[in-house]
Amino acid sequence: MKRSECTEAVLEAKQERGLTLQELADGIGCHVVWTTAALMGQATMDRSEAETVTAMLGLGPEVAQALQQIPTKGSLPSAVPVDPLIYRFHEITQVYGAAIKAVVHEMFGDGIMSAIDFEIDIQRVVDPKGDRVQVTYSGKFLPYRKW
Amino acid sequence: MKRSECTEAVLEAKQERGLTLQELADGIGCHVVWTTAALMGQATMDRSEAETVTAMLGLGPEVAQALQQIPTKGSLPSAVPVDPLIYRFHEITQVYGAAIKAVVHEMFGDGIMSAIDFEIDIQRVVDPKGDRVQVTYSGKFLPYRKW
Amino acid sequence: MKRSECTEAVLEAKQERGLTLQELADGIGCHVVWTTAALMGQATMDRSEAETVTAMLGLGPEVAQALQQIPTKGSLPSAVPVDPLIYRFHEITQVYGAAIKAVVHEMFGDGIMSAIDFEIDIQRVVDPKGDRVQVTYSGKFLPYRKW
Amino acid sequence: MKRSECTEAVLEAKQERGLTLQELADGIGCHVVWTTAALMGQATMDRSEAETVTAMLGLGPEVAQALQQIPTKGSLPSAVPVDPLIYRFHEITQVYGAAIKAVVHEMFGDGIMSAIDFEIDIQRVVDPKGDRVQVTYSGKFLPYRKW
Amino acid sequence: MKRSECTEAVLEAKQERGLTLQELADGIGCHVVWTTAALMGQATMDRSEAETVTAMLGLGPEVAQALQQIPTKGSLPSAVPVDPLIYRFHEITQVYGAAIKAVVHEMFGDGIMSAIDFEIDIQRVVDPKGDRVQVTYSGKFLPYRKW
Amino acid sequence: MKRSECTEAVLEAKQERGLTLQELADGIGCHVVWTTAALMGQATMDRSEAETVTAMLGLGPEVAQALQQIPTKGSLPSAVPVDPLIYRFHEITQVYGAAIKAVVHEMFGDGIMSAIDFEIDIQRVVDPKGDRVQVTYSGKFLPYRKW
Amino acid sequence: MKRSECTEAVLEAKQERGLTLQELADGIGCHVVWTTAALMGQATMDRSEAETVTAMLGLGPEVAQALQQIPTKGSLPSAVPVDPLIYRFHEITQVYGAAIKAVVHEMFGDGIMSAIDFEIDIQRVVDPKGDRVQVTYSGKFLPYRKW
Amino acid sequence: MKRSECTEAVLEAKQERGLTLQELADGIGCHVVWTTAALMGQATMDRSEAETVTAMLGLGPEVAQALQQIPTKGSLPSAVPVDPLIYRFHEITQVYGAAIKAVVHEMFGDGIMSAIDFEIDIQRVVDPKGDRVQVTYSGKFLPYRKW
Amino acid sequence: MKRSECTEAVLEAKQERGLTLQELADGIGCHVVWTTAALMGQATMDRSEAETVTAMLGLGPEVAQALQQIPTKGSLPSAVPVDPLIYRFHEITQVYGAAIKAVVHEMFGDGIMSAIDFEIDIQRVVDPKGDRVQVTYSGKFLPYRKW
Amino acid sequence: MKRSECTEAVLEAKQERGLTLQELADGIGCHVVWTTAALMGQATMDRSEAETVTAMLGLGPEVAQALQQIPTKGSLPSAVPVDPLIYRFHEITQVYGAAIKAVVHEMFGDGIMSAIDFEIDIQRVVDPKGDRVQVTYSGKFLPYRKW
Repeated sequence: MKRSECTEAVLEAKQERGLTLQELADGIGCHVVWTTAALMGQATMDRSEAETVTAMLGLGPEVAQALQQIPTKGSLPSAVPVDPLIYRFHEITQVYGAAIKAVVHEMFGDGIMSAIDFEIDIQRVVDPKGDRVQVTYSGKFLPYRKW
Repeated sequence: MKRSECTEAVLEAKQERGLTLQELADGIGCHVVWTTAALMGQATMDRSEAETVTAMLGLGPEVAQALQQIPTKGSLPSAVPVDPLIYRFHEITQVYGAAIKAVVHEMFGDGIMSAIDFEIDIQRVVDPKGDRVQVTYSGKFLPYRKW
Repeated sequence: MKRSECTEAVLEAKQERGLTLQELADGIGCHVVWTTAALMGQATMDRSEAETVTAMLGLGPEVAQALQQIPTKGSLPSAVPVDPLIYRFHEITQVYGAAIKAVVHEMFGDGIMSAIDFEIDIQRVVDPKGDRVQVTYSGKFLPYRKW
Repeated sequence: MKRSECTEAVLEAKQERGLTLQELADGIGCHVVWTTAALMGQATMDRSEAETVTAMLGLGPEVAQALQQIPTKGSLPSAVPVDPLIYRFHEITQVYGAAIKAVVHEMFGDGIMSAIDFEIDIQRVVDPKGDRVQVTYSGKFLPYRKW
Repeated sequence: MKRSECTEAVLEAKQERGLTLQELADGIGCHVVWTTAALMGQATMDRSEAETVTAMLGLGPEVAQALQQIPTKGSLPSAVPVDPLIYRFHEITQVYGAAIKAVVHEMFGDGIMSAIDFEIDIQRVVDPKGDRVQVTYSGKFLPYRKW
Repeated sequence: MKRSECTEAVLEAKQERGLTLQELADGIGCHVVWTTAALMGQATMDRSEAETVTAMLGLGPEVAQALQQIPTKGSLPSAVPVDPLIYRFHEITQVYGAAIKAVVHEMFGDGIMSAIDFEIDIQRVVDPKGDRVQVTYSGKFLPYRKW
Repeated sequence: MKRSECTEAVLEAKQERGLTLQELADGIGCHVVWTTAALMGQATMDRSEAETVTAMLGLGPEVAQALQQIPTKGSLPSAVPVDPLIYRFHEITQVYGAAIKAVVHEMFGDGIMSAIDFEIDIQRVVDPKGDRVQVTYSGKFLPYRKW
Repeated sequence: MKRSECTEAVLEAKQERGLTLQELADGIGCHVVWTTAALMGQATMDRSEAETVTAMLGLGPEVAQALQQIPTKGSLPSAVPVDPLIYRFHEITQVYGAAIKAVVHEMFGDGIMSAIDFEIDIQRVVDPKGDRVQVTYSGKFLPYRKW
Repeated sequence: MKRSECTEAVLEAKQERGLTLQELADGIGCHVVWTTAALMGQATMDRSEAETVTAMLGLGPEVAQALQQIPTKGSLPSAVPVDPLIYRFHEITQVYGAAIKAVVHEMFGDGIMSAIDFEIDIQRVVDPKGDRVQVTYSGKFLPYRKW
Repeated sequence: MKRSECTEAVLEAKQERGLTLQELADGIGCHVVWTTAALMGQATMDRSEAETVTAMLGLGPEVAQALQQIPTKGSLPSAVPVDPLIYRFHEITQVYGAAIKAVVHEMFGDGIMSAIDFEIDIQRVVDPKGDRVQVTYSGKFLPYRKW
């Protein structure tokens, strides 16, 4: 079973059973963003996670096996995404990227925020002027090696 | 004075005077990320901010005036950035974009996180396994209008 | 059912039954542009709208369900559209974009016209020299947040 | 004098004299969007308009002459604009383009909205929930010729 | 029936029946270039034309119906065509485009040649040094509107 | 002197002296499209043509010499032109390219219209519904060699 | 039968029957490069060639017919080929293109080497330091027409 | 002195002194294509060649030194060249690339024609139907290493 | 059988039988990187290798035959890869490419590292601060030929 | 002083003084690849390194200061490099990228080779059949975090 077929099967089963992403994440004891990424072929589940989640979804062992394969990552069809929600993240990088770089270098020196030793959290922050989406990136600082 | 010349003049003066971005931000009472973005031509200062910051940098009124112009935004030379620090933000969007979209929709319904009514914070989180870069995006949720 | 299959099924049924987009819009009490966008996978119907429109089209519940999913948006196959009608909108942005930006900033200050809290109207304006297409965009002004 | 140098000279003089785009437009009796487009090298002034506007700006005859040359049009540096205000117009075309096409064809048959026999208006619409930007495109309908 | 399937069916039937494009055009009383464009999904036939041509080709009513739909236009898979015959037209635009623009503006003022109120003719011109392909474009001149 | 500097010098002198492209073409006894192409660095003048035209323009021998160099051809800054007049030629190729190919092959067999043994004519055709731009391409048919 | 299906059928049959490209070329009395190009949909066989080659391959009349259609040419999936053998030809054009242009112009004047009245030969040249691939292009010189 | 300035100086001096590429090549005893490539910054001269050629051109030691630097290669401004002479080589790769690959593999097995241990020759072949440009590529066959 | 179907069949069989890439490589006595490349359609096996490996995988002769065909190479769907592991190699070329070029030229003169007479080794280097991936490229130095 | 001007000044001084990259690296006690990268604006020197190297090159304090700035990284003008030496590294990623990914995952699990905690070594390996370029990449393995 190809990873893309696996993703389709998961999304269809999720819709039929009326399960939320949060419920699936709770079922395997992981964060909802990581769980969603794994279900969409961007991260790798271990055996127990894959079996639990496929049981919840009523899917067979070939799906569970596919969820344990290390995927070729990349969830978008193009470098500049069209979907407005995803584009805003692209726009933030385009507009604020140079400022973020300057501030991180001032705080840490030459290096980067890891996108591998990394996690994302998303929260709804209640606000009387309109609730806010709060997305937190947390990545280990990796200093450039000099040799 | 063109906005790009203004940015160059600011960066050169900042280096000569040995000022940090944080000190410039404190001088005008704004957040360091917003201040850096404004100095780099991605946001618009008001008169008082522009005059304070140019005084700190020892720059003339034509720089102060340029900082008050509404800029054509976009801080990067290409859609797919090459610089490794900035690229990691592009990679996060590419790898986790579809998962972020799914989770935001589950939490809020159809709509987006605004990149205009929006702010960024960057913190250094001490961690014995290596300090972490924590970047927080906070944008108002905008539901799609139906008409 | 995938959203693209849903769009195909809707268009085929519409043609077979000889229904117009306006009639479908009237059936659900929404504007014809919004209704067409929703049928083409660019907006999300609620349950009642989806059931009404699929009843009009003689389509089953799997189509009604697909119309209620939040879609991955983007109705065109390329960033620079080839179809002449759609290209003209791209050309307007390319030719008049900088002027629109300057005028909006003069009227409103630094910020944008929202494309989310937004609606489109299309009218036929009778003109003895040849009728005119009048397209009206109405989007909330969003001022840039300073923080 | 090159057209791009002409645009720079105009914008600098406008800023120094503290003139608005609306004042310049009123000076020549044209719409502010058209006037701005002409000053930015996207439309062609006649002699009287060019002389009036350069007089208002305190600029010489070589600028007046440049404003009367038919320009090579295109106001943006890339097909997919980065500036958030301009990008929203690109996004509207990407998301709603197919729907606009379908509705125009239903109303008019096979043909296009001209971008040449065409005008743009921009208005501020007061709204208690936040003022709105209203942009109106009006272009002659051009039916496809059959031969 | 999708428009692309319609095109395939037409080309296959044309080959099997040994009909030429000219014969099909003569059958409906239209120019061979327009007829070919319509058969290839770039123009819209009326009912009588569609029924006549499908009768000549021995194809059913679903093809006739598809030929009456207004198509999404664009006959080539890429902006820079690879096929040598088609590429030469691209090359002509690249090499002579600026000269054509200058000459048209000198003859007509600021405006364009319409590609909608437009027709193409192709003739074989006998020449002892080798016959020539003569392609004539005829489009209405559209002057830029000033407002 | 670089060819691009030569083009600039020619255009500036033409404007100052108030000469038309047609007058320059008449001066050297060539077609206005070819002459314009040559002045813009897309074709090569011989010594007599270059000296005549520079005399008319009041330019020196380094311009005359540059006009005799074989240029690196290509008059546009991008593969998909933005300028509306030039874009229409691109659109014609995109929309009608496949039809033109089919008709040329039916008339001539496998081969192409040369863009080298080639000429362009532009005429203003008076029409009560609006004058028309008539552009004629005439290129030698080159059959594919079989070996 | 589509041309691409025809190519696949030919390659499969060639492999099953253990025929070489040279044997197929000898069978129809044409050069191996031209024959291969024709089998891969880049040139057009006449009836006798198509029937001979399909007989050798044990393929039916629909393949023979497809080989006689004038194809839409272009044998590679991208403008910059990835396959190392083909890329080297791209690299040669990128690195030596300007030099080839200068030398051809010095030898012939302004014009090009035809890629239509053109043939390719490939030879193995024995060399004690390692055999060499010798590829010879021979195209008619086409001088630019002046008009 | 930058390599690009060196190329400009060489071409200007060559034109002023009325020297041909062939004469310069003869002066250093190398092939005209290699010599042209070296003068245009695509190959590296040794000290004696550089001094001889700059003496012929009347240029100083900084040019001679620049000609001895190993250049960053690539003589064209874009991956798909616009200039018609150079484009034809691109077209040949696009149209015949797959056929060349198939024939080379049949003659040599898996490997490539080197573009480094490589030379080009250009000849004028007299032909009553029109002289021909003959370009010969000769590159060492490099078999793929298996390990 | 197409090469891409062959790759899919191999990967599926490998997973079902629980075989590692190293075991398959040991089975044919080749390096694991080369073997993986060959299984993925980037190198050509000989008959004995192909038969051994298909026997290990329980696959039929059509797979063995496909593994012996010389493939069209290129293992990635885009020039700038999205998958983070593969992107790091792209980043290394982008960031260190110019430095590698300068150092290789200082050590060897003008020429390149062959990517054909070439091999790759990958090792796990134990390190108390975290194990390291060590990738070694070894390619024959090819000096540029002068002619 | 801009970083690009700094690079130019360094390269010019290096050439005038006849210093090698290895000598400059030895002067500061760092590896030649890292030193070259730092001089070319891809890494950051500390004060002592910058002062030592500028003293060796006879350059002033503004160069030393520029070498201590954290640069915007990226040493190549395009995503697909044209220079043959650098292209070969791009080709290796394109051809062997999927195989490298598969082998690294089999040896280490899901994660990447760091390009930050990373070093490169280049050696000349003497070989009777032609010396070899050996390039070794050593990067810390970073496992994907699960959260």
